[in-house]
Amino acid sequence: MITREQIAEDYKTIQDEICAGLEALDGSAKFEEELWERDGGGGGRTRVLQNGNVLEKGGVNFSAVHGQLPAAVKKAFGTDSDDFFATGVSIVMHPNHPMVPIIHMNIRYFEMPDANAAEPIRWFGGGIDLTPHYVFEEDARFFHNNLKSVCDRFDGSFYPRFKTWADDYFFIKHREETRGIGGIFYDRLKATEDLSWDTIFEFSKALGRTFLPTYSELVNRNRSKSFTEQEQQWQYLRRSRYAEFNLVYDAGTKFGLETNGRIESILMSLPPTAKWLYNFQPEAGSREEQTLNLLKKGIDWV
Amino acid sequence: MITREQIAEDYKTIQDEICAGLEALDGSAKFEEELWERDGGGGGRTRVLQNGNVLEKGGVNFSAVHGQLPAAVKKAFGTDSDDFFATGVSIVMHPNHPMVPIIHMNIRYFEMPDANAAEPIRWFGGGIDLTPHYVFEEDARFFHNNLKSVCDRFDGSFYPRFKTWADDYFFIKHREETRGIGGIFYDRLKATEDLSWDTIFEFSKALGRTFLPTYSELVNRNRSKSFTEQEQQWQYLRRSRYAEFNLVYDAGTKFGLETNGRIESILMSLPPTAKWLYNFQPEAGSREEQTLNLLKKGIDWV
Repeated sequence: MITREQIAEDYKTIQDEICAGLEALDGSAKFEEELWERDGGGGGRTRVLQNGNVLEKGGVNFSAVHGQLPAAVKKAFGTDSDDFFATGVSIVMHPNHPMVPIIHMNIRYFEMPDANAAEPIRWFGGGIDLTPHYVFEEDARFFHNNLKSVCDRFDGSFYPRFKTWADDYFFIKHREETRGIGGIFYDRLKATEDLSWDTIFEFSKALGRTFLPTYSELVNRNRSKSFTEQEQQWQYLRRSRYAEFNLVYDAGTKFGLETNGRIESILMSLPPTAKWLYNFQPEAGSREEQTLNLLKKGIDWV
Repeated sequence: MITREQIAEDYKTIQDEICAGLEALDGSAKFEEELWERDGGGGGRTRVLQNGNVLEKGGVNFSAVHGQLPAAVKKAFGTDSDDFFATGVSIVMHPNHPMVPIIHMNIRYFEMPDANAAEPIRWFGGGIDLTPHYVFEEDARFFHNNLKSVCDRFDGSFYPRFKTWADDYFFIKHREETRGIGGIFYDRLKATEDLSWDTIFEFSKALGRTFLPTYSELVNRNRSKSFTEQEQQWQYLRRSRYAEFNLVYDAGTKFGLETNGRIESILMSLPPTAKWLYNFQPEAGSREEQTLNLLKKGIDWV
């Protein structure tokens, strides 16, 4: 089995590739990098861009941290272990254009010693999901078909399992709406008789590498569309729902806040401008209402 | 002991007084009212105003709900009881002016049957706290002195105890900063040999009735000040911290989301426009830095 150092190295390379590609896509924005160290052990490379031609705010963060788990997290993981190692790449991009979707991607690896065995307890997790301010069905189909292709190269069961998982995970329970059109999500994925660690690791890298061509296509399809001031207001309202999801439900955000992570790196996912309007109801038959009607679990996009 | 129906009636009257007073203060905004019923029992009167002369968005909500506690809340309360009753008035006001502070006030009463006694388990809770975008020390002293005067009319121990409680409660742990300059906060306040239920109830009404003159004075002191575009941006950034507190820590918000409360009523506390800028650092010696330096626990304002 590949070592944690190699996993972290490959994830770093993926971060580099994605940052270079997003700068080229935007045409103007440059990532600012901050290297940080964690008090308990490890650190990261936070890369954030702001005020690009189309990418208004976003981050592509790499971290590899280790140390002791806080009591609350140990309890959640059902372990007494005192050490952990976690590495991953996390991305959120908020475009300045209401017709261009928000995107999120994460690939991660976690391990901790197993008191009862020589091998550590380990797993991979990850996901990618799309949050269009306005849902365009042809874009949603393109996005899901791309994800299915990546999944199918590794395991025919991945896409249907992980698509359903994303529907359940990226769900704003108190609004009874999904965050966007979903994508795939998986956690605690471990080797089995039919699935090797290498396959899981290669899958996680392939997922990381599908991010750039997929998002570039979606940005380029929509960045030149015209939009109204009302449509921009709707974008800001959709961003407030994104903030609600991340602050109330997102497991990565909670883990970061509870493990004393670097706050500005964790909360780079929050939108540049968000608006909460009281009890906003879209007009019957409007594009806004059509979008709300597609923020449901269980839609088959492929 | 006064009945829960009487408590709810008096709280409704306080809601009416405050709404009339805030409309007069603003000079233009009118509250929209929505009456709602809760599936499990009870309901409320949500009153929200938007786009006033100085009050950009805010709510003055009354509710009186009863029914069954969800399992998670029962566990938190350490009870097996299947019934609860809760009534209260909750206010949040977001002004459109960076020199005018955000304010929050809540008074509430809770009861549930006690399996081992004829009398129910009951308590009062409440609080009022101020979140200036820019802290003006004379305003902070005025605010805290007003609260101390109300407290001292009922019990000399209230202000020091409840002021410290507010510092601890209105604290954004992951930012290591208080939400604003605090105020008072108390919960599960019950009668003792030295403190009657009537005194606690009268205190809660007096607190409700200090809201209007206190906030009116603070609005009128500051509403005519000029401000720059940069100062407005800072206001939006402070509002994003307010949203973080409410979504991550606020017990009332969590209770509402978990008990299937009316979402738009609960989340009326969220700001009309908020901005998250990456890693914003105020200039040394600026008014923004001075404000951050005052967002600490334990400052004695009286």
